[in-house]
Amino acid sequence: MNIAVLGTGMVGQAIAGRLHELGHSVVVGTRDPASTLARTEPDGMGNPPFAAWHGDHQGVALATFADAAAGAELVVNASNGNVALEVLRLAGAENLAGKPLLDIANPLDFSAGFPPTLFVKDSDSLGEQVQRAFPEAKVVKTLNTLTASLMADPKSLGQSSTIFVSGDDAGAKATVVGLLESFGHDDVIDLGPLETARGTEMLLPIWLRLMGALGTAQFNFKIVR
Amino acid sequence: MNIAVLGTGMVGQAIAGRLHELGHSVVVGTRDPASTLARTEPDGMGNPPFAAWHGDHQGVALATFADAAAGAELVVNASNGNVALEVLRLAGAENLAGKPLLDIANPLDFSAGFPPTLFVKDSDSLGEQVQRAFPEAKVVKTLNTLTASLMADPKSLGQSSTIFVSGDDAGAKATVVGLLESFGHDDVIDLGPLETARGTEMLLPIWLRLMGALGTAQFNFKIVR
Repeated sequence: MNIAVLGTGMVGQAIAGRLHELGHSVVVGTRDPASTLARTEPDGMGNPPFAAWHGDHQGVALATFADAAAGAELVVNASNGNVALEVLRLAGAENLAGKPLLDIANPLDFSAGFPPTLFVKDSDSLGEQVQRAFPEAKVVKTLNTLTASLMADPKSLGQSSTIFVSGDDAGAKATVVGLLESFGHDDVIDLGPLETARGTEMLLPIWLRLMGALGTAQFNFKIVR
Repeated sequence: MNIAVLGTGMVGQAIAGRLHELGHSVVVGTRDPASTLARTEPDGMGNPPFAAWHGDHQGVALATFADAAAGAELVVNASNGNVALEVLRLAGAENLAGKPLLDIANPLDFSAGFPPTLFVKDSDSLGEQVQRAFPEAKVVKTLNTLTASLMADPKSLGQSSTIFVSGDDAGAKATVVGLLESFGHDDVIDLGPLETARGTEMLLPIWLRLMGALGTAQFNFKIVR
């Protein structure tokens, strides 16, 4: 499948690399490809610059958000939550229309420090905001409840764990579930309509505190039943 | 141990019954014992009246909130979140002072229907509100992330699952963890200070949607790591 991954951070890298490894044609979208490749400093989290990752993944193309989305059959929103709507506007509503939009972004607000709060929650969600802003896209919220490396390779945990999907379009959800299964996700729970993304986005506060208590991000939720 | 369980609903019944079975001396607290025992109608959720349960658990005493708390070494708040602070005021600050207060209540707001939203979240929690209102109590938030029968008997799931504890008093937390282990909880994660209750209370939105998607409340979170 032709897939655009919007965002060059750890999430974008993990998803783009995995999709490419699985045989998809992947274009990573960014604001300005030249300046993305020119950056030589680690990001704010200490991660290596995109160019270093790209050197090891030359089969993955880099383009503007709009060019990446235009050629894609499915678009992944791997941007930070606080810029997600802007990134998608730059990608262009016309380039998202009619396509599954796999939304990973979380509405984290770091303005008061760590741990962040959520800038939308409880009676609304970022997934729903995206859907309202781009009504012709077929938003499927998923993968926002675990660390990037486990999104792409859940089997590396060594035990089965759970991934959640929320969305209003059954066909788009089925396409996304197929991708998740190809990543190794063997316990996918369809929570129902996109409204249920309120639940998964509100997992972030405990996720962040678990990371503190356990001293690692290498964990995931399993729904035991 | 002498334990007061404040609240006569499903949670109070499950916890009180289990504690009694384990050999503790248990007093259930209610607003007005006579009227609690006189009720013959099911509650709003269709559960049998307290008197029916009490007939099968005559070793458990029933008293006013204040009388129950006065004689206890540990107090369990099993009231509904929307009345929790009022229930604890009726129990009496002097009867909570210096004691572990195991707080199970969730800040669910059903005023706009189902699923409920949370009346406190993200930058505060009900657990912290309780602690601020009763500064001499030693609040430990736990058991608020699963259905009543599994709180009391987690082994009935047939697989290990996780329970979280949050609290500022190490001694009270150790006492509560001992009780949890006696219930059968074999994976207790201490999230840290009471502030971390924001994370567990914000699990309710996905818990409620999982109950809908799975068609049962017999499930629990396991943190796979």
